[in-house]
Amino acid sequence: MEQPSRLAGSVRPGGRTARVRAAVLAATQDELVERGFHGLAMDQVATRAGVGKTTVYRRWGSPAGLVVDLMKELAEQFLAHADTGAVEGDLLASALSMVEALGDKRLGPTLEAMIAAATCDDQAALALRAFYARRIEVWAKAVGLAVERGELPMGTDGPEVVRAVSAPLYYRQVVIREPVTREDAERSVARTLAAARAGEFVVAGAGV
Amino acid sequence: MEQPSRLAGSVRPGGRTARVRAAVLAATQDELVERGFHGLAMDQVATRAGVGKTTVYRRWGSPAGLVVDLMKELAEQFLAHADTGAVEGDLLASALSMVEALGDKRLGPTLEAMIAAATCDDQAALALRAFYARRIEVWAKAVGLAVERGELPMGTDGPEVVRAVSAPLYYRQVVIREPVTREDAERSVARTLAAARAGEFVVAGAGV
Repeated sequence: MEQPSRLAGSVRPGGRTARVRAAVLAATQDELVERGFHGLAMDQVATRAGVGKTTVYRRWGSPAGLVVDLMKELAEQFLAHADTGAVEGDLLASALSMVEALGDKRLGPTLEAMIAAATCDDQAALALRAFYARRIEVWAKAVGLAVERGELPMGTDGPEVVRAVSAPLYYRQVVIREPVTREDAERSVARTLAAARAGEFVVAGAGV
Repeated sequence: MEQPSRLAGSVRPGGRTARVRAAVLAATQDELVERGFHGLAMDQVATRAGVGKTTVYRRWGSPAGLVVDLMKELAEQFLAHADTGAVEGDLLASALSMVEALGDKRLGPTLEAMIAAATCDDQAALALRAFYARRIEVWAKAVGLAVERGELPMGTDGPEVVRAVSAPLYYRQVVIREPVTREDAERSVARTLAAARAGEFVVAGAGV
């Protein structure tokens, strides 16, 4: 149950406040993975984190407050866009990091629990949206570079290309419930790029 | 609360057993929409359906049993593939029916509740998978016709094309939580067809 947490090491050391946040977010993620959003209880998070209940209630307010802060922290992790010099390589790197995230024993169930929570909780939905907005923003830089290099038409919408690469991977894992593989990532990139080269992601008035 | 049910009229009349099933599935869908899968209780479904609790327990066994049967029934509804004579029109009709389903006041929340349930319940996941497998199978016929007419390359994988059209719509609604529109459906079809015409959906050994 008490696995070493990815979060524990990733929050920069910064005195007691930062240590409390790291412990509480790690415990929140543990509870989400084990019980889902509906099973997330403030008291259990406090106990698991070894932090006073009053502190957790005062600082995070509710289970939704906990997951909002967790998603904010996760959005900043593993976040770098590849720069392989070619758009295929850059997008494939993004797609493979999605496959890895969905298959990861901690991050995968966390994302699925958040997707489930977002279907019935507005704060969870906002947290999830902010998480993906941040990743899409970073990964879309590869499309900007591809346009500069002449690999894709002027005006190609970067965030839309990244969303199109992501969509089949999430659809397969979350909706039709089949595991996603490296091959799915490769296919999604190839298909999206074929459409992008044909100008299907050009937005009127963009990129000028 | 007691809205007229889509299900009530769609199960063929067939005596008491069919009437009981229709009432129980309509009540299951009502409860799913209002409370989600985690709030689905056998007793409440029985009360709402006006059916004895013993009958509901004996025939469906568990909340998972109820949603499995509900998804089986829903899979057979609204199920016809368009035959407009051109692949764009056929796929757009499928995509628009997905947009309509996701935006429908009863069916949309039902699908979202099932997607949420499937993240943590294996029987719900199987029910969801069977639901989409059935729809994809029917809609994929349009791709077979397109290959026969020479609109798409030989060996184009029909179910994969349908999944590619669907993926951005579900991704937008369920993962990044933005409403899907007719424009999203049109874009998804145009992008998928651009990739399909470029041969990106041809599977080795298929369609021969």
